Amino acid sequence: MKAIIPFKREGAKSRLRDFFSESEREELALRMLKDVLAALSKSEIEEAEIISTCSEEILEELKSGFNQKLKLTVREDSRGLNEVLNGVLRDEKEPVLIIMADIPLATPESINGIVGHEEDVVIAPGRKGGTNALFLRRPSEFAVSYYGISCLEHIETAKRRNLTHVIHDSFFISADIDEIDDLTELLIHGKGFSTEYLHRIGVSLRVDKKSMTQAKVERF
Amino acid sequence: MKAIIPFKREGAKSRLRDFFSESEREELALRMLKDVLAALSKSEIEEAEIISTCSEEILEELKSGFNQKLKLTVREDSRGLNEVLNGVLRDEKEPVLIIMADIPLATPESINGIVGHEEDVVIAPGRKGGTNALFLRRPSEFAVSYYGISCLEHIETAKRRNLTHVIHDSFFISADIDEIDDLTELLIHGKGFSTEYLHRIGVSLRVDKKSMTQAKVERF
Repeated sequence: MKAIIPFKREGAKSRLRDFFSESEREELALRMLKDVLAALSKSEIEEAEIISTCSEEILEELKSGFNQKLKLTVREDSRGLNEVLNGVLRDEKEPVLIIMADIPLATPESINGIVGHEEDVVIAPGRKGGTNALFLRRPSEFAVSYYGISCLEHIETAKRRNLTHVIHDSFFISADIDEIDDLTELLIHGKGFSTEYLHRIGVSLRVDKKSMTQAKVERF
Repeated sequence: MKAIIPFKREGAKSRLRDFFSESEREELALRMLKDVLAALSKSEIEEAEIISTCSEEILEELKSGFNQKLKLTVREDSRGLNEVLNGVLRDEKEPVLIIMADIPLATPESINGIVGHEEDVVIAPGRKGGTNALFLRRPSEFAVSYYGISCLEHIETAKRRNLTHVIHDSFFISADIDEIDDLTELLIHGKGFSTEYLHRIGVSLRVDKKSMTQAKVERF
């Protein structure tokens, strides 16, 4: 089974700019991708294709640090997300998992859970209506739409095209890292490359004195 | 199997005060509790005990609208959360599920998933380090601590007391409703009492024009 991972390095994660320099954001983005690849390499997925606006140079950097049984390829493509993905899906005969590069808490178990459903379309939501993983048993019959409330868009598309669908319920898949607050989840639950990097550059958690029940991210 | 649900009605959900009047917040809190009870009533849980600072009057309001096979009791107790829960756990011989009242997306499947683990302690995290559901096979050997980063506190307690533990991975259980932004999840994924109430009082979603990929909550 194959996974497709859209990845953007240049100018990545701009909403983290109050905390991190541009090169730190790019490094963090790359490490989050490595965490996703590490989870995929321990799951039922056999092959991962990274679709990136940057060149194949990143391939070498990525190859270290996780199970080599995952076959890894990088495709350079500067088109928009929907356009490039729908181009790939159109010719795809086998089931495909589209998984985001910014969900570093993804686990082999959560990935196996997603591809284990029998429905034609499996949607693992992100927060605020995103689609963080999308498993398509019949990819050529589907078209993605990652703008708007994509989770609802994908449900509608499945219905319209007479494909069965299910929502996959995973906290770890839902936790995409876009804003400073999102780092909380990574610092609490993460054990991989990106959490190690956050620790190294002095990002940590403290309990919010006002609520006493929530953690806040800080950087020394 | 028994569930315990701490519930606070008076002054509930104060961080929603920019959007809702006090009575609306209390109504929403009650409806979220009803959604949790509805999910429990379709799960393997047979009995639910609500521990509340308010009187037993709420019982009557709650009894309508969900499967009557769930045995429901209300206990009035004005002590703090940890104190009252640890008092209950101390004498408890049977497995207990402690589940929060503000997770209206909880599903029967997610609840059955939690109580289906074999470990002594099952922790279903909330966002930012909370513990939204906690299943204890040997409750008298455990003590809860809902302040600080409770999810990590509960992992530590399990280790210290030589109890096996596991993290249960559920997006629907993780989605506690504390802030306006949290309503996004309820409006996208909810089908129960609280979502119906939000629609009725004019709370809806629009796509954020800046990000184009995220939804924002608004009220007419």
